[in-house]
Amino acid sequence: MKKILIINGPNLNLLGIREENIYGSQDFPSYFEELRHSLSGVRLTYFQSNHEGAIIDKLHEVGFSFDGVVLNAGAYTHTSLAIADAIAGITTPVVEVHISNVHKREEFRHHSYMAKNCVGVICGFGLESYRLAVSSFLS
Amino acid sequence: MKKILIINGPNLNLLGIREENIYGSQDFPSYFEELRHSLSGVRLTYFQSNHEGAIIDKLHEVGFSFDGVVLNAGAYTHTSLAIADAIAGITTPVVEVHISNVHKREEFRHHSYMAKNCVGVICGFGLESYRLAVSSFLS
Amino acid sequence: MKKILIINGPNLNLLGIREENIYGSQDFPSYFEELRHSLSGVRLTYFQSNHEGAIIDKLHEVGFSFDGVVLNAGAYTHTSLAIADAIAGITTPVVEVHISNVHKREEFRHHSYMAKNCVGVICGFGLESYRLAVSSFLS
Amino acid sequence: MKKILIINGPNLNLLGIREENIYGSQDFPSYFEELRHSLSGVRLTYFQSNHEGAIIDKLHEVGFSFDGVVLNAGAYTHTSLAIADAIAGITTPVVEVHISNVHKREEFRHHSYMAKNCVGVICGFGLESYRLAVSSFLS
Amino acid sequence: MKKILIINGPNLNLLGIREENIYGSQDFPSYFEELRHSLSGVRLTYFQSNHEGAIIDKLHEVGFSFDGVVLNAGAYTHTSLAIADAIAGITTPVVEVHISNVHKREEFRHHSYMAKNCVGVICGFGLESYRLAVSSFLS
Amino acid sequence: MKKILIINGPNLNLLGIREENIYGSQDFPSYFEELRHSLSGVRLTYFQSNHEGAIIDKLHEVGFSFDGVVLNAGAYTHTSLAIADAIAGITTPVVEVHISNVHKREEFRHHSYMAKNCVGVICGFGLESYRLAVSSFLS
Amino acid sequence: MKKILIINGPNLNLLGIREENIYGSQDFPSYFEELRHSLSGVRLTYFQSNHEGAIIDKLHEVGFSFDGVVLNAGAYTHTSLAIADAIAGITTPVVEVHISNVHKREEFRHHSYMAKNCVGVICGFGLESYRLAVSSFLS
Amino acid sequence: MKKILIINGPNLNLLGIREENIYGSQDFPSYFEELRHSLSGVRLTYFQSNHEGAIIDKLHEVGFSFDGVVLNAGAYTHTSLAIADAIAGITTPVVEVHISNVHKREEFRHHSYMAKNCVGVICGFGLESYRLAVSSFLS
Amino acid sequence: MKKILIINGPNLNLLGIREENIYGSQDFPSYFEELRHSLSGVRLTYFQSNHEGAIIDKLHEVGFSFDGVVLNAGAYTHTSLAIADAIAGITTPVVEVHISNVHKREEFRHHSYMAKNCVGVICGFGLESYRLAVSSFLS
Amino acid sequence: MKKILIINGPNLNLLGIREENIYGSQDFPSYFEELRHSLSGVRLTYFQSNHEGAIIDKLHEVGFSFDGVVLNAGAYTHTSLAIADAIAGITTPVVEVHISNVHKREEFRHHSYMAKNCVGVICGFGLESYRLAVSSFLS
Amino acid sequence: MKKILIINGPNLNLLGIREENIYGSQDFPSYFEELRHSLSGVRLTYFQSNHEGAIIDKLHEVGFSFDGVVLNAGAYTHTSLAIADAIAGITTPVVEVHISNVHKREEFRHHSYMAKNCVGVICGFGLESYRLAVSSFLS
Amino acid sequence: MKKILIINGPNLNLLGIREENIYGSQDFPSYFEELRHSLSGVRLTYFQSNHEGAIIDKLHEVGFSFDGVVLNAGAYTHTSLAIADAIAGITTPVVEVHISNVHKREEFRHHSYMAKNCVGVICGFGLESYRLAVSSFLS
Repeated sequence: MKKILIINGPNLNLLGIREENIYGSQDFPSYFEELRHSLSGVRLTYFQSNHEGAIIDKLHEVGFSFDGVVLNAGAYTHTSLAIADAIAGITTPVVEVHISNVHKREEFRHHSYMAKNCVGVICGFGLESYRLAVSSFLS
Repeated sequence: MKKILIINGPNLNLLGIREENIYGSQDFPSYFEELRHSLSGVRLTYFQSNHEGAIIDKLHEVGFSFDGVVLNAGAYTHTSLAIADAIAGITTPVVEVHISNVHKREEFRHHSYMAKNCVGVICGFGLESYRLAVSSFLS
Repeated sequence: MKKILIINGPNLNLLGIREENIYGSQDFPSYFEELRHSLSGVRLTYFQSNHEGAIIDKLHEVGFSFDGVVLNAGAYTHTSLAIADAIAGITTPVVEVHISNVHKREEFRHHSYMAKNCVGVICGFGLESYRLAVSSFLS
Repeated sequence: MKKILIINGPNLNLLGIREENIYGSQDFPSYFEELRHSLSGVRLTYFQSNHEGAIIDKLHEVGFSFDGVVLNAGAYTHTSLAIADAIAGITTPVVEVHISNVHKREEFRHHSYMAKNCVGVICGFGLESYRLAVSSFLS
Repeated sequence: MKKILIINGPNLNLLGIREENIYGSQDFPSYFEELRHSLSGVRLTYFQSNHEGAIIDKLHEVGFSFDGVVLNAGAYTHTSLAIADAIAGITTPVVEVHISNVHKREEFRHHSYMAKNCVGVICGFGLESYRLAVSSFLS
Repeated sequence: MKKILIINGPNLNLLGIREENIYGSQDFPSYFEELRHSLSGVRLTYFQSNHEGAIIDKLHEVGFSFDGVVLNAGAYTHTSLAIADAIAGITTPVVEVHISNVHKREEFRHHSYMAKNCVGVICGFGLESYRLAVSSFLS
Repeated sequence: MKKILIINGPNLNLLGIREENIYGSQDFPSYFEELRHSLSGVRLTYFQSNHEGAIIDKLHEVGFSFDGVVLNAGAYTHTSLAIADAIAGITTPVVEVHISNVHKREEFRHHSYMAKNCVGVICGFGLESYRLAVSSFLS
Repeated sequence: MKKILIINGPNLNLLGIREENIYGSQDFPSYFEELRHSLSGVRLTYFQSNHEGAIIDKLHEVGFSFDGVVLNAGAYTHTSLAIADAIAGITTPVVEVHISNVHKREEFRHHSYMAKNCVGVICGFGLESYRLAVSSFLS
Repeated sequence: MKKILIINGPNLNLLGIREENIYGSQDFPSYFEELRHSLSGVRLTYFQSNHEGAIIDKLHEVGFSFDGVVLNAGAYTHTSLAIADAIAGITTPVVEVHISNVHKREEFRHHSYMAKNCVGVICGFGLESYRLAVSSFLS
Repeated sequence: MKKILIINGPNLNLLGIREENIYGSQDFPSYFEELRHSLSGVRLTYFQSNHEGAIIDKLHEVGFSFDGVVLNAGAYTHTSLAIADAIAGITTPVVEVHISNVHKREEFRHHSYMAKNCVGVICGFGLESYRLAVSSFLS
Repeated sequence: MKKILIINGPNLNLLGIREENIYGSQDFPSYFEELRHSLSGVRLTYFQSNHEGAIIDKLHEVGFSFDGVVLNAGAYTHTSLAIADAIAGITTPVVEVHISNVHKREEFRHHSYMAKNCVGVICGFGLESYRLAVSSFLS
Repeated sequence: MKKILIINGPNLNLLGIREENIYGSQDFPSYFEELRHSLSGVRLTYFQSNHEGAIIDKLHEVGFSFDGVVLNAGAYTHTSLAIADAIAGITTPVVEVHISNVHKREEFRHHSYMAKNCVGVICGFGLESYRLAVSSFLS
């Protein structure tokens, strides 16, 4: 059975509360339950933190034993070279996801420090971006 | 039954021949057949051209009746404002895909003219990028 | 009797269909008929293509015998050095036009490769931009 | 009867004296007389100043009652955010004109602070740029 | 009794008329009267001009005897090195204010030539920006 | 009674110790006590952290119930897109303050990621910047 | 016997007609005949198109069997990432040539997308640039 | 007898008062009297204004009859394209001077809009820069 | 006896595990023990954290009593203005070190926010960079 | 009999020793002898120096009497405006050559200060670049 | 008696031969003799070299005993940080001169590395630039 | 016994004379004697030149037989691609040193052309930077 971790970065705990026009109205834990129940043959876990260092700690913790990480690093996507280095330093493959299509938003959201260290990038499909990312590990 | 078109841009007819270290060794038509047979409830068609204008013509042709377009515009991704305008001008939703993770490659491949006019972007999963893109229209 | 050709570039065949808030709701052929009938002493013809190469071929074809070309190169305005070179290579004077005021739009639409090789530029007057351009050849 | 004002900015009082290879040899007042006599159904007036502040004062003065302003702001086109703000602050529509094709000249003359606040831009037709601009208000 | 001058730059005479969505609907003279009456122990005066040179002249006139200047230089904030030099050349301290939060607006409004020569900057509080600035001289 | 929180970011715990020529010699807790006692009708609280994530956590905690936040994010002002997103994600209005006039300092301190998501910005008035910011919520 | 193809890109069909001060007065077909007759042991062929896609199609057609391609891509040299990718995708070596010394011309003609995928570059020797390029395949 | 005009731009009326560490302690009128008395065979006059437009008006007034203009445009040196155009539009030769060595100061003072339209530039010799400039017209 | 602290930033806890081609195969604690035993007359301690805020807290804790800090801030070197400010705010001198020669790596690793606040920089000598840095405090 | 000089710049004396993967394993003097013997009707000489000034002196020495100079300025190609000026100052035509295809190498090797003052450029053909260059003078 | 040295940099030995349209037709030694004879109370000497290092050596040699150096560093003006450092390292004041008005020429000639370390700059007066520079040391 | 050469570049012969606030008051030869006497098991030699070419010649001379070079290239660090190429072309390892912390100085001193070709970089420790560099070869 594959072990996959979804990591959400800063402010994603506000999903369903914050800026609904961009991120939709569903909170993440309820989506996560739906997603987990719809999948078989995979042990899916979830972690959220607003702390850059805590995300790095978590990547180190799972990064040599899990089968995959789905990472939405939120704003740290665009500013955190340290998380990018953490991804390069572990052996578990990481897929970068975004709920919104970042290319429709501000210029500074078009560049990702971590994309080049990930397997690939999926963005713009709302919460379904996570399902597509998880399924990429299952094929 | 949903109608979905996959469009491949310049040089993607060389897949399986060209630069195998980047693009792999399978040619696209054989992959396309596999993909088509593995899906039900969707009429999947395929178009390839090295001509920017021909891609625009094709987008116009299907862009008011199809349910989705999966577009790998190849190098035109990074240079063709005209294809980007075509996507904005039609009503069919378009998903941008890339076989390789473009963020691991040259700087000029990190910027896409068309991403902001698409639903979303999927890159880095090899030929499976196409399957993920098609499945995004089916959920 | 003066011979003047209007050339429309990529996506302008969608006029009246596409993005009405920017381009208005009239299709070009009907406007063209109105314009042609309102003018005397001039033989006005029309050409549209989504292909950069076809626009260059057409400029070569008319560029040593016509009295003027009115060119709306659409997105190629901002990316096609080859069309710009074609204008420099012919002897017929060319006027660059745009339906919308490009300066109100994205940054990349503010620069024109071809403007410096044209007689002048007219933009922002809706379809009437074409009439003003044609009339510049008639005074 | 429509009220239209032509405003000329800095150094345009030297027309016919200064740099004839760029601007031609006719002085503006004599051209203005020709233009005014050739038009009917419009009350055309003229204002010139080398003072940025005076041009702003004049725009405020006419900007809520006139039917149109034709503005050649000269070098202020490229440096005056204050005139651009004045155009945005009034209700009378403004058309930007230039005698020469600014795109054939120095790089810094390619950018206009005010273009995005105007109806449109006409450049490169010599003094006839003014006639085209006035006629855009009359159609 | 402290002597403080409020200087308003170009287009601020249109307050209450111009772009109400940005600047609100109150004209400045009526706000100024309210502000003056609500304060004691200070002689507050007001000056407005659309002329860069006139603002410099005024800064020279009061700049060695007044206790403070509250300056909203409007668009000159972003283009006038000469006003910035005038502030550096006088001994009266100057506070830069803006009605709107300039950081929410166009890129070119984010940079101020004069900020580094002022005591400080206050922006975004509507007309109350002026009251906060005046009160900074009174504490 | 209004509830207002002052948040100080990294290194501001060194106030009165660190770089007195820039920040002055008073430590913040003693200033805070003075400020709190001088105000009535407001419940003023204070939080300081050197951790970006802790500032985000705190903004989430108070951001849907307090009447205002006065935020001096220190160096994170110029690097933290995540705090900027947190401000955008909450409903409590935030005012950005700085003790020093950041425009007199290094180039990289002139840009704030968070300013555009705040009500406004106040900088350069020493510790009194905080009083001005708090008073903006009380008028 | 070696098979070598010369490809000329957009506007090079105007040679001898267009801009004689830059490109000289000889048309290419007559030069090509001279060149072909002066060489032995090589089968030299010629292709010209104004269409980016047609040049890519031709490169694919000859790119796995010919011994060399001499390519003057004209303006596409500076804008076509797709042709550059085509060169990288084939196995036949390509030499980039230019008639004029592009470094004496506009800034945007100094950069070539395709140079890094070619064997080498020869520019500035008039039509003789082609002879030098062909001879590089024969030594 | 040669007619030479010295023009001083914004804030130079503060010489001897303002920023003595940069500009020295002598006021310009007393220096001007010294300079005028030390020279023979030349009619030297002086003009100062803080108004960009007034400097342009003055250049037009003398620019077709005087033998030389010595211009210290102060901050307008770095921002006024309109004064630069005025210099290009007149026939009297202009020499640009600066009291301080502008290259030792802020980056934005290193670029002059008008230098390329002047005979030459002299900077860094204190008030003696003016004497050197005047003497360049007398040799 | 001198008190010196070595601080390692994010991902340096992976040394010996991560990217051996860049960082070598020895883990830091074992190196640290070797280094400590080889030195006399110095009390050497060690701290590692992946949290930017924790590094700042530690710098504050030792920064007014220790004789030196050797800091390898890892990726925060290139992104953390807050750590740079912490170094400027303490009185203990800090030496910046890197295991690899950062100038051989990606462009963004060439710039250090903290270098200008440190005594000096030592990079490229593998783990021996730390010994050189410590020895700089002992001479 | 034509007189042609080959000049090699810095580090080219290491050819055959240095970086064989880039420059090949033949030393230049032995190549030069081969080249000289294979040509007739030309007096070919050779000069190498690591000194920028010595290359300039040599260009002056031959630059009014020789029929051609073949110049590989090595790294000075990208940094020496002085050699570029020397080429512009002499009457002998100069051809710029490079052994490697500089466009495949670091960004800073793509720009040549001297190319615009030369007849043309040949790069990428190994040592045969010199033969092509010499032959361009002989046709 | 004052000791003043004139230093000319690369290619200035070609004066009177090279590019007469820019530099005029007089060679420097004959101008130098005229200049020396026209001055009294000064011992004027002259040095020219095409070698950057030789100019630095010469500056060191005279830089602690001479009363002034007039330096035309030619192209090294725009590339040599080492000469700029030499000027900063000596005590003799240096005046930078140029024969042509460098601001009328290529962009890269507008920036001088050494200007900020010199007393001042004089350019554009032909050979008379030297006389003005020498006279600045004599007043 | 190891052979190590210290190379000093331009203006470093002025040490102890020039800019003492930056470089200190000891001349290099006396420091060198101290350093040489304090080390055993190493034959240390010294070379200084203001000539870029002479530094390259010296690197070639020792670069295939010495055990190490300590190079302070002075200003050439930031401008000489030719010295950087020389370092890449030899086999002796080179350590780059600077007396001052270049990161505290002008922007253009932050970039080194040669750092990426060296083992490592040591800067900011005054003359002791040389001792640290030499000791890196001895461990």
